Amino acid sequence: MKVYRYEKNPIIKPQDVRPYIDGFQVIGTFNAGTARYKDETILLLRVAEKPINNNPEKIKAAYMNPETNKIEVREFDKKDKNYDFSDSRVIKDNIKKDGSFKYLTSISYIRIARSKDGKQFSVEDFPFIFPEGELEAFGIEDPRVSQIGDVYYIYFSGVSKFGIGEVMIKTKDFRNKENCGMIFSPENKDVVIFPEKINGKYYALNRPASKSVGDPEIWISESDNLLYWGNHKHLIGLRKNKWDNGRIGAGAVPIKTSKGWLELYHGADKSDKYCIGALLLDLNDPSKIIARCNNPILAPRMNYETDGFFGNVVFTCGAICEDNIIKLYYGVSDTSMAYAEFHLEDVLNFINVN
Amino acid sequence: MKVYRYEKNPIIKPQDVRPYIDGFQVIGTFNAGTARYKDETILLLRVAEKPINNNPEKIKAAYMNPETNKIEVREFDKKDKNYDFSDSRVIKDNIKKDGSFKYLTSISYIRIARSKDGKQFSVEDFPFIFPEGELEAFGIEDPRVSQIGDVYYIYFSGVSKFGIGEVMIKTKDFRNKENCGMIFSPENKDVVIFPEKINGKYYALNRPASKSVGDPEIWISESDNLLYWGNHKHLIGLRKNKWDNGRIGAGAVPIKTSKGWLELYHGADKSDKYCIGALLLDLNDPSKIIARCNNPILAPRMNYETDGFFGNVVFTCGAICEDNIIKLYYGVSDTSMAYAEFHLEDVLNFINVN
Repeated sequence: MKVYRYEKNPIIKPQDVRPYIDGFQVIGTFNAGTARYKDETILLLRVAEKPINNNPEKIKAAYMNPETNKIEVREFDKKDKNYDFSDSRVIKDNIKKDGSFKYLTSISYIRIARSKDGKQFSVEDFPFIFPEGELEAFGIEDPRVSQIGDVYYIYFSGVSKFGIGEVMIKTKDFRNKENCGMIFSPENKDVVIFPEKINGKYYALNRPASKSVGDPEIWISESDNLLYWGNHKHLIGLRKNKWDNGRIGAGAVPIKTSKGWLELYHGADKSDKYCIGALLLDLNDPSKIIARCNNPILAPRMNYETDGFFGNVVFTCGAICEDNIIKLYYGVSDTSMAYAEFHLEDVLNFINVN
Repeated sequence: MKVYRYEKNPIIKPQDVRPYIDGFQVIGTFNAGTARYKDETILLLRVAEKPINNNPEKIKAAYMNPETNKIEVREFDKKDKNYDFSDSRVIKDNIKKDGSFKYLTSISYIRIARSKDGKQFSVEDFPFIFPEGELEAFGIEDPRVSQIGDVYYIYFSGVSKFGIGEVMIKTKDFRNKENCGMIFSPENKDVVIFPEKINGKYYALNRPASKSVGDPEIWISESDNLLYWGNHKHLIGLRKNKWDNGRIGAGAVPIKTSKGWLELYHGADKSDKYCIGALLLDLNDPSKIIARCNNPILAPRMNYETDGFFGNVVFTCGAICEDNIIKLYYGVSDTSMAYAEFHLEDVLNFINVN
């Protein structure tokens, strides 16, 4: 399938952004949610900052102390056998050995980036949403935005020692905001809320991750008020021997087309290579799957997609469809933001919907 | 604390119940939810059945095929190194090694048991709730009942290869019932819904279990309609070096007292010994903890509590408070039902609330 990658990619890089936390450096500006507001394209940018570390024998973890509301740093010796430091993103407990983590090596929050042309962005110097309270002590990650009427619902993973759940805020102007609490309990992430009611109900895709049984797959849930969710159903699973055999999750907020709801989702294989694919869901009942791509629409190929803090990742949290062109904003290698375009018709052909 | 154990315990045993599934035997009649209906005490009894197996070299797994709605059996060779058979309840994948399971060795469903005196029960010969659909293919477990007005809401774990979530039905007469869908997405279990609105909202305790980070602890969530839930908050956690240092979860539906909501919960230590303890939550805001017991109210001690399919377990899904006496129904060793009584005042003293 023909995909145009913007030749000036990446469009936002960590070097472009000044750190907000004293003694920290910006290591990631990625996985941004997307909205159109007045004459601007807005990115809700995930910014990851890491404690500056000049000692190669140490590893540092960062978190917010919910009692003081201050960022704190904990230092680990790389030789400490109690911990596993093999994943650049996390510090794991070597005693538990169940794959769970104990700390993150960076802390993420959300800044706003604004653009008139959708390609050149200026990033605000301060956070728009910063971790608050005990459920966000390890940071907030991967925001998506659903515009419903004149309200923008922004929701993201709240990460803490208690788990990873989906937290929501709402805003009308990207300046003032109101908290809506945790809308999906742990472990859940990769939530996307459909931008309108369907047969009288709101719907959301989401991605539970279970301890006892079950793979990281996409579920669908319904709501009356966007705050409380239920009637949870399993929607779509992994595929053996394909690019999405490791984990899948919703990506961009679903796009309404004449053929169905187009969902640009992410799939990773067992070696954690993340690609972007497409699903088409029934317009009147999004729990019905009309089509699913066999191959990815976008796979890591360019240097900025293959190399970075966590390489071989393309990951979208938002796309805009205008004049039948899909404008895709996507995070690359947990490091930067990139931009691509393709024709809506081409995607529909690619997933065999004509 | 003084606890009276009924001398004819256990009150319901597997031998008392005829199997419902052809070729199966009943191995468990336990973890029953409790309700008062007309002049009867009703137990919503978890019945576990297991395929009869005459070959000591084999292990059998049971599940419902959601496409045919028929129970199917899969046989495993005990020497098969791909699987771990060390836990009598589950068959684990030896390749994954993350502690997750692949099959259950029994399948559970719910029968009704009725009693006039609250101690002698007659168990119906057929299921009241039987696994239905792909989210219940491995069975339904550990029901609780909340009576709100003249409606009884019955909710239980739906177990399948997709995860463990909480499913609800409602009934007015314990004969006809209506499905309410999955109210808590995976992984979640040990849900108890408060029996009335508090300051205009329904509340539920619940127990998420996460893959990436977080311990199995008690959360609290709110709702407008009992079907959709949100504003999830972490309520209370494990305690190091105590009897509840491994996992905790709500037990009986909260009991309203003049001092607060009394919650009889379960805690297990790291060797999976399950005890019953008590929490007191604020009458007007159940997300506030007033008191928590230091020691268990009930710990496995009698033979029927220490020996069985999965020994050393006392586990309640329901209690009734009448004339300031708490009548506790509790499952023992994942095998039978037992009955105990204690004074409400004694529990309140035990947790230092006077």
